[in-house]
Amino acid sequence: MTRTLYTLCGANPAQRFSPHCWKIEMALAHKGLDFVNVPTPFTAIPQIEGGTKTVPVLDDGGKLLRESFDIALYLEETYPDRPTLFGGDGGKALSRMVEGYATAVLTASLRKIITRDIHERLAPEDQAYFRASREQRIGMTLETIEAGHAAELAAFPAKLEPMRHVLAIQPFIGGDAPLFADYILFGTLQWARAVSPKRLIQDDDPVRAWFERCLDLHHGYARKVVAAA
Amino acid sequence: MTRTLYTLCGANPAQRFSPHCWKIEMALAHKGLDFVNVPTPFTAIPQIEGGTKTVPVLDDGGKLLRESFDIALYLEETYPDRPTLFGGDGGKALSRMVEGYATAVLTASLRKIITRDIHERLAPEDQAYFRASREQRIGMTLETIEAGHAAELAAFPAKLEPMRHVLAIQPFIGGDAPLFADYILFGTLQWARAVSPKRLIQDDDPVRAWFERCLDLHHGYARKVVAAA
Repeated sequence: MTRTLYTLCGANPAQRFSPHCWKIEMALAHKGLDFVNVPTPFTAIPQIEGGTKTVPVLDDGGKLLRESFDIALYLEETYPDRPTLFGGDGGKALSRMVEGYATAVLTASLRKIITRDIHERLAPEDQAYFRASREQRIGMTLETIEAGHAAELAAFPAKLEPMRHVLAIQPFIGGDAPLFADYILFGTLQWARAVSPKRLIQDDDPVRAWFERCLDLHHGYARKVVAAA
Repeated sequence: MTRTLYTLCGANPAQRFSPHCWKIEMALAHKGLDFVNVPTPFTAIPQIEGGTKTVPVLDDGGKLLRESFDIALYLEETYPDRPTLFGGDGGKALSRMVEGYATAVLTASLRKIITRDIHERLAPEDQAYFRASREQRIGMTLETIEAGHAAELAAFPAKLEPMRHVLAIQPFIGGDAPLFADYILFGTLQWARAVSPKRLIQDDDPVRAWFERCLDLHHGYARKVVAAA
């Protein structure tokens, strides 16, 4: 059976940076499921099989799936004998809260910090698309966003406090071992690692130690992405 | 068997306001476990059986338990045939993330909004203790905290965005039915409801609808507390 995951990349196909794609790359690695990775730049996304506006798209032996959380639920249901991504129904429900925190708190802040860094790592045709869509979404030019990044960057570490609360109790958000909730948060921070040289998390932050543990998972799978210098 | 829960109250014993006690009152109601509620003002806490600096304290047939999360884990383990508080190991682990968000985001903000309101609902001897301990903790007089409350109150609704993300998908944080994670967040907001007349959540906010659903749970158990006007 062929299993294909379409992910997002910059001008360099090895520079995969979508937080949502990283969630699923890690989820597939967690389940021990092999797959062909097809890095796809922004303007090539509409040509992905089946038609789509977003990645990830998973083709699991002919079955097409979209939306990272839905894909994770599908993997849990389809491969129940592999390591669990949720640890039961409570874990499924509460992973939505982790997703809410990742989206509303971390992603909202990171957009103001790394959006121009993403732009710089795209091919010219993708840059045009990205500039237009992001300037409309955020309501500012990339240059204005970038001019305000320092204040947002300074405020970022405080936003990680809920994670520090957990990591003072257990090594992973999911407990003694990672769950999909870890990959939701990891994907968000890996997004930044892949495209931005800015330092978001200090070396002595427990979130840094957890992030390094995530990079070590599955034989160092996520370290292999080309990271921004 | 006698089961006793020591909770925190103001000058009026029916005005129970500790967020951590509310988590356990709701957890006991969720499990369908009867208990004798002993509302206790701040300065009487050290006289609780067994000795303690904090409430809740649960005496479960002679077994003394402290710390709300530990009590919830105990109830889950001791009464496995009653409705679950966690929905499995994943739910246990991720409830810590909900606790982290409640503590670092909501409680941190509410302290700047309702601390003087709490003070006004205490008996004189408790007021003296409360003023000294809270002014030291927050590093401001109660009057200075209160003077800044309007800005904090205006910023509060945005902090609920992670909850709105979840509530757009499912009726409770725990999914189709509440889990301990709901009670963690409910307790935090019930703390404010019990002592403060300030309006934290607008009527059209999905968080308001969820809070009302929580007030309806277990035969309207939590509506019965004396709320601030």
